[in-house]
Amino acid sequence: MTSQIFSPGLQQTLDLIGIFVFALSGGLMAVRKNMDIFGICVLAEVTALGGGVLRDLVIGATPVAAFSNVGYFSTPLAAGLVVFFLHPEVERINRAVQTLDAMGLGLFCVTGTVKAHDYGLSFVPSVALGILTAAGGGVIRDVLALESPALLRWDREIYAVPALVGATAVAVLIGTGHLDAWTATAAALCAFVIRMLALRYGWRAPRAWHRNGSRTSEE
Amino acid sequence: MTSQIFSPGLQQTLDLIGIFVFALSGGLMAVRKNMDIFGICVLAEVTALGGGVLRDLVIGATPVAAFSNVGYFSTPLAAGLVVFFLHPEVERINRAVQTLDAMGLGLFCVTGTVKAHDYGLSFVPSVALGILTAAGGGVIRDVLALESPALLRWDREIYAVPALVGATAVAVLIGTGHLDAWTATAAALCAFVIRMLALRYGWRAPRAWHRNGSRTSEE
Amino acid sequence: MTSQIFSPGLQQTLDLIGIFVFALSGGLMAVRKNMDIFGICVLAEVTALGGGVLRDLVIGATPVAAFSNVGYFSTPLAAGLVVFFLHPEVERINRAVQTLDAMGLGLFCVTGTVKAHDYGLSFVPSVALGILTAAGGGVIRDVLALESPALLRWDREIYAVPALVGATAVAVLIGTGHLDAWTATAAALCAFVIRMLALRYGWRAPRAWHRNGSRTSEE
Repeated sequence: MTSQIFSPGLQQTLDLIGIFVFALSGGLMAVRKNMDIFGICVLAEVTALGGGVLRDLVIGATPVAAFSNVGYFSTPLAAGLVVFFLHPEVERINRAVQTLDAMGLGLFCVTGTVKAHDYGLSFVPSVALGILTAAGGGVIRDVLALESPALLRWDREIYAVPALVGATAVAVLIGTGHLDAWTATAAALCAFVIRMLALRYGWRAPRAWHRNGSRTSEE
Repeated sequence: MTSQIFSPGLQQTLDLIGIFVFALSGGLMAVRKNMDIFGICVLAEVTALGGGVLRDLVIGATPVAAFSNVGYFSTPLAAGLVVFFLHPEVERINRAVQTLDAMGLGLFCVTGTVKAHDYGLSFVPSVALGILTAAGGGVIRDVLALESPALLRWDREIYAVPALVGATAVAVLIGTGHLDAWTATAAALCAFVIRMLALRYGWRAPRAWHRNGSRTSEE
Repeated sequence: MTSQIFSPGLQQTLDLIGIFVFALSGGLMAVRKNMDIFGICVLAEVTALGGGVLRDLVIGATPVAAFSNVGYFSTPLAAGLVVFFLHPEVERINRAVQTLDAMGLGLFCVTGTVKAHDYGLSFVPSVALGILTAAGGGVIRDVLALESPALLRWDREIYAVPALVGATAVAVLIGTGHLDAWTATAAALCAFVIRMLALRYGWRAPRAWHRNGSRTSEE
């Protein structure tokens, strides 16, 4: 999250919003799983920061940003407390949370790809780390809650595809020398819009060919 | 585990005791899950060393201490063999194992916080890494055994709170320049005593506000 | 995977074959779990590269080889597509896949041990990282699929023991100064043959002593 496409203040603000919303989704999962306040805070932390931590570990950016920046680390705790005291209200505005989550998805797939490229990774691995930054925290959340990771399930609206599109767009922009604040924003918006459309129209990814019912989703 | 609050020999001895006891709890979980001897040794290793490995990865202390120190690595194997041959006896002294486990909890939340601070982390992240050092191995053990992590469950005696108290005490001691062998021991003892009291009196952390039955635990 | 026991071209070829086959087993698990194409590719990636990534993180070899080498990263995607379109055919040649998987096991326990030693680890940790390289990806695959890790189950043919034998052989060869392309190949073959015999004759590891039925496997 060190790469400066945006001004430092704007970047930090966007990061914190994304982290806060991801943390809400982690805290809500903990409430559904009947965990205590500590479980809520832990799931909030891992959901919000897990993707960035995995990215930083893979590229060797240690100490990882999530732990060296107090704001990044404290924000999920605040989100955890919000869920602890107000979880029925947070559930009620679930549609708003999903919209904000889609914004976090767009933001993090862009910043993750840029940071991976800054550390010398080539096209395909940079895209993969962009997706990992955006989606990794949710996978850790699901594993700790003993849920089948939503990212991998065919019966959930696509989450990785928007991240893939956004990350690929950024990697192409970097490769062609056109990455700036405006094009990065466009890439993030692109991922955001695809995710919102997927939620709106129930878009799903196909299952394995020949599998009973798998082709119907493409006809 | 490199920070020298205690003399090197004493530190090493304490570390090995803590590692051995954590490894016993991992091995016992493997026996309950009907795993073979290799599963017993793997769960012993990850339970004993997992928290320290995660901490070292996050702060960038590689190769991680658990793998560069042969004693640290071999001790869980010894504990695994003990469980393999003597698990009914180990189960029988479960109360003693829990007491030793509480000692390991106290020790590792202190040494984890100190090491995180040595690597330049600030107050809150250092405390978080102290908790991670003490409790992370148990979470990995539970995930590999497909159990809901005891750390996150509301129906288990609090485990993170003692670690939080111990780690916070150490971080305050560092901040005020009062950390030495005596105050560090006091912080570890503090965590140990809270954990023992929690086990004795069944202390639990509250679940989310408004949730059915959650407030009764606070009335 | 940087250590040059073999010529660079041969090493790369062997690595890619091993990665491809491991990825097939990950993709097949995803199909059995009814995941979508993205889940298939993710499980193919983590199964094929997870062990090497964990090894590189532990020894501090970042950015990890799996992400800095485009070939390593792209191969599992190709395997994922093969599984997506042809999974009934891949299931049908399951015996051939198991044979190739055993070859990957032999190869990676050797290269993992060598790389760990290159990074300064001593005998026992190097052997452990050799096993981790060979078996770690399968454990992550099983955790993400919410399956009890096959590596730890007593009712599956031994997987870790062949890796242990191969890795120990390599560590002894390094210690005695006899490691070269021929002896490394012999160590890998040794692990391969033990794994194939285990599959052929249903070899299993013992469960904890005194446990009902555990001794029968040794009588």
